[in-house]
Order: sequence, then C-alpha cells, then structure tokens
Amino acid sequence: MPRIKPLELRNQPKEIIVTINRQWRLKTRPSGLIGPEHFEYVETELADIGAEEVLVRNLCLSFDPTQRGWVNDMESYMPPVGIGEVMRAGTVGQVVESNHAGFEPGDLVQGLGGWQDFFTVPNGVGLSKLPEGISPEQALGVFGTTGLTAYFGLLDLSEPKPGDTVLVSGAAGATGSVVGQIAKIKGARVVGIAGGPEKCAWLTGSLGFDAAIDYKNESVAEGVARHCPDRINVFFDNVGGDILEIGLSHLAMNARVILCGGISGYNETEPQPGPKNIMNLVITRSRMEGFIIVDYLHRIGEFLADMMPWYQQGLVQHKEDVQEGFENIPSTLQRLFSGQNTGKQLLKLADPS
Amino acid sequence: MPRIKPLELRNQPKEIIVTINRQWRLKTRPSGLIGPEHFEYVETELADIGAEEVLVRNLCLSFDPTQRGWVNDMESYMPPVGIGEVMRAGTVGQVVESNHAGFEPGDLVQGLGGWQDFFTVPNGVGLSKLPEGISPEQALGVFGTTGLTAYFGLLDLSEPKPGDTVLVSGAAGATGSVVGQIAKIKGARVVGIAGGPEKCAWLTGSLGFDAAIDYKNESVAEGVARHCPDRINVFFDNVGGDILEIGLSHLAMNARVILCGGISGYNETEPQPGPKNIMNLVITRSRMEGFIIVDYLHRIGEFLADMMPWYQQGLVQHKEDVQEGFENIPSTLQRLFSGQNTGKQLLKLADPS
Repeated sequence: MPRIKPLELRNQPKEIIVTINRQWRLKTRPSGLIGPEHFEYVETELADIGAEEVLVRNLCLSFDPTQRGWVNDMESYMPPVGIGEVMRAGTVGQVVESNHAGFEPGDLVQGLGGWQDFFTVPNGVGLSKLPEGISPEQALGVFGTTGLTAYFGLLDLSEPKPGDTVLVSGAAGATGSVVGQIAKIKGARVVGIAGGPEKCAWLTGSLGFDAAIDYKNESVAEGVARHCPDRINVFFDNVGGDILEIGLSHLAMNARVILCGGISGYNETEPQPGPKNIMNLVITRSRMEGFIIVDYLHRIGEFLADMMPWYQQGLVQHKEDVQEGFENIPSTLQRLFSGQNTGKQLLKLADPS
Repeated sequence: MPRIKPLELRNQPKEIIVTINRQWRLKTRPSGLIGPEHFEYVETELADIGAEEVLVRNLCLSFDPTQRGWVNDMESYMPPVGIGEVMRAGTVGQVVESNHAGFEPGDLVQGLGGWQDFFTVPNGVGLSKLPEGISPEQALGVFGTTGLTAYFGLLDLSEPKPGDTVLVSGAAGATGSVVGQIAKIKGARVVGIAGGPEKCAWLTGSLGFDAAIDYKNESVAEGVARHCPDRINVFFDNVGGDILEIGLSHLAMNARVILCGGISGYNETEPQPGPKNIMNLVITRSRMEGFIIVDYLHRIGEFLADMMPWYQQGLVQHKEDVQEGFENIPSTLQRLFSGQNTGKQLLKLADPS
C-alpha cells in the first residue's frame, strides 16, 4: 500500500507513514547516444489520489526504440518528454487504490506508467486491464504493443501471400521476430536480418525463418541478393539507413515497404541522408508506408482472436530479455541500441501481490 | 511516300527512287547532362515492309523526362536504348503503307516511333489510332501519356477531396499542370512549384492554382510553409531531391506522396542522397508510392470519358511548346532539364497529308 493516512485525532501526536515514489526523470536531452547521464534519480512523496483517480504500482517496464524519439525536442506522434518529467514508458502494474468504478485494488493493468514505482491516472484514462491469463511480460510483448505492431503493421499495410518473399530487418527484436512468424503463418518465405550468429540461429531454428543474414559478419546486400532470388515482395523495416537502401534495391514489382522504425538513425546527432534509390519505388511501382500502432489500439480484439491461438499452438513464439533493479532502468534502454537484447526488452520491478 | 517500287519489266532499265530515313541514334551513354553530343545523325535507306507490317511516317515527337533514364545502361521498366539504336520516343505519325488489316494509309497513329522520319511496326504492335478529333499535339499531351500520367497518378494513388491541400512540383510542366487542374476539379486547394515568374503567373492565372512557389526566386521551404498552413494531404512529385525532402517535412496525417519522377536527379553522375526525413512517413502515417503509366494504358477509355468533357469545358487547359527541325531533336530534349519548356515539349516534323 502506498500510503497510510494519518490518524485524524485532535490533540494527539500524528503518526505518518510516507510512501516514497522512486523516479527516473529526464535531466538533459541527449544529442547522440542516450544513456544514464541524461536521467536523474529522484525520490518523491506519493500524494493522495483524488476523485476518479486510480493509483497503480508498476511491476514491469517495457523498453522500446521509439522512446529515443520521445526525448527529442520536437513534435512527433506524441509530445516530447519535458525536462524534469518522469521518463515515459509502457508498463504493466497493479492497482493499489482506486476512486474509479472501473478499477479495483489488485487489478493488473497496462498503461504509460513511466520510469517510476507508482503512477496516478485520472478517470482511468489510458489504463486497460490485462486479459485473463496473460502475464505482465506477455502483456508488454507478444500480446501488447509489440505483437500489435507486428500484426497490424504487416497485415494492414501488406498482404503477404504464399510464395511471397518477406524481408524483415531487426528480425531478432521484439517486433521483427513476431513479424517473421506471422509471415510464415501466411505462407511466405521469410528472410531476417539480425546481428550475430546466435540471433540468426534462433531465427532459422526455433522461429522457422527460411534464412537469416548476420549483418555483423556478412554483406547484407549480398545476403539479400542470395536469399531473395525472386526479389522482395514485402519489406518490414525496423532499421532504416543502409538497410533500407539495400531493401529498396531488391524490390519485386508492386512491393510493399512497411516503415516501422529506423533505429539506425535514432541516436545520430544529425539527420542522416535517405536512401539514394527512392526512384526504385517508381520503377517497381512500389509503396512505402509508415504507421504508428496507437492508431490500432481499438482493434485489439481482432488481434487477440488470431494471436491467442497462434501462441497457444506454438506458431508464434516469443522471447523476453528481462532485466531487474530500479537502478538499471536507464542502462537497460541502451541495450536496444547496441543490439544486446534478443526479443522483447523488459525490466521487472516486482511480482503481482 | 517512302519508296516507289521499281517497275518490274524485264530487259529494261529500272528506275529506283529510294526513300531516305533520317535518324538520330544513340552514340554514347551520357554521364551527367544529356546533349546532342550523345547522338549521331544517320541516313538510311528505307526497307520494304514485310507481311503484317505497318509503315508509319512520324509527324510529331514527344519529349519526356523519362527518356533520360532510357539511355542509362541499367534495367528499368523498359530495357535501355542500345548504343547505335535509334533513340526511343513517343510519336504520332501517319500510316503510309500497311500489310495489316487493322491499319490503312492515312491513319493517324501513336506509338514509340523514335527519333526518325519513318518506323515499321510488326502486326501493328504498340500502335494505336488517334481518337476522332484529336490532333497529334493533343494526342501526345493532354489526351496522351501526359494526361494519362496526371489522371491515374493523382486519382489512382490518392483521393483528393474538397478542402485537401495538393502540392505539385514541376507544376508548369506537361504532367504537373494537368495534375493541378484535376485536383482543382476535385475541390482541392492546389499549390504548385515552378521556375520563374511567368510560369507561376500562368499557374495562378489561367490554370486557377491557389498559389505558386517560384523555386528560382524564393525559398521553397518557406513558400510551402506559407501556402500550406494545414500541411499537405497529397504531394505529386515530379522532381525529387530537395523538393521531395521539403514536401515530406510538411505532410499532414495520412498523406499521400505520389512519386511520378525525379527530374532533379536524372542528369547526376552519381546517385544523390535521399531525403533525410523519410521517418516523417511514420510519424504522419503517410504513404509514398511510385507508378509507371504503361500499367494504365488499358484504362484509356475511363480517362477519355472524364478528360474529353473537362477539356471541352475549359476545366483543363493545356499548353504545348512546339519546336521544329529534325536537326533540333537532340537539343530539344535538353529543354526539359533546363526548365525552358512550359507545358508539353514537342517537335513537329510534318503536318498530316
């Protein structure tokens, strides 16, 4: 429980137990690689909640490449995190106190809880209960934003068909690994790009990718040419930069390039030049399209109806990289940008009570 | 008439009149700006036509930015023009002799006749008769590839709605000027980018564009920001390069970027870097798509059903820049890349007989 209210007896000493809310706040905006030096550790006293508010204790934090964009001083699909504000993050938590009819103590919920122990939500806005039988880790991964991103990004922006070749970059990441497995379910040939022999072996082994290209140890251009002899029908790109350019060079006719992200450029101090071969989109009559998963949150039922059975049947597997320790939160974000994580990057603060 | 056959009388002298076919052939592949030095003037004797062949005399040549790509030594949507081959070009001509049931002498026809006086087509392949009442100039412009490109590029790859802002680059060119007028018919606000005050005055005057930005005399970025306060819903880009990057910086949500061409890069010796801000496609959930008009030729009926009345009612106007003289063919192509033409660039060789 976060806070025991003081006894309201006049003329007697009051006993106050204050609950401390640990936080990591944005101290300075990074120019280049983001790191612990850009955040400040703060302990604050947790305030009482007001009417219609819900108090949640964070159990598990999600780490996502898009967080790098949130700390830049520019408008994007969300306003930037302000200096001195708690770092924004997707989290799963447990309701500890609720003045809102929709939530009660003990409920497992998901929201943008941020890098802190507790967060308060007015009117339950942005808070959703976890579906029955789904763990916090799963809710932030395969059944959460990651799975949604893979599912709607791939299936709403393209229609992979049997025989199509689907290329996925960042393929051993949380989203990429699910994209490839969904494409396999749809009957496509799937080629993944990932860093290092272990990740590549995981893709072609457990996950059933048809081929994997190890960008740390081989030429991606040669790998794509070799593994995509009929060129690429669908390119799901999480990386941008050179990888995007190589993909654009190998498009089949009427190809679909799905821009999910561009992690290669997120920590650059200057905007990087774009691909030199954009005109390949003209020659091959192809489409390149971006999306943001927040636009699809209302379609989560559609997603779960497919993903639940796929997961239960083992058609979609999911790996989580779970770190621990409040003090390790900022450095855990860096793991995404150095490619240390395989699968979904999480940090666990506590188990449900 | 191309050739008078010799009188077939034995034991008498034969009188032969040979018809000379003037040609411009590709001599060397340009690296950088294309010019007359890359072509060779040749006179050849016109051969008899064979079974099912049709002989056509070129009356009018079309000049199109895409011709620059045809002389590069790389596969594209058509094979490159070979060294020593007649330069490929869209033309309107008149049938002078036909061994094919579908065509007879006098027919006005359109095809890829190339830079020469005469061309021969087996089985009438690639040859189509001009619709009734359409002049050679119109057939190569507003009712030809130019009009088709504007019509299907704009309306098949986007759906401009009343109130939308449509930005057009190369707006005083053959295609761009028609794109803007179609967008106006659909009720959109139309902003054009063109070079020089005369072109801009033509756009906002005769053609009814809402605004024009003179890229030779003002900052395009400032102009776009000023004239597109609600950002851009549809961007029809003929130019590429910096102009594409500026357009991408001003996209509205769910915008459509139609890649028609990238004339700014066609004469570069090295591929130019792409736009630094491709990730704006993600933030704005936008789509960038290329197309080639050859995919739409079978839908010409649909196009004419709209364009004929628009043209007759003056809703679509069309300007042609008609050069003359066989010797001026190669230098006329250069006019496109220096922006000398307003509207459709043509060269007239002869009137119909």
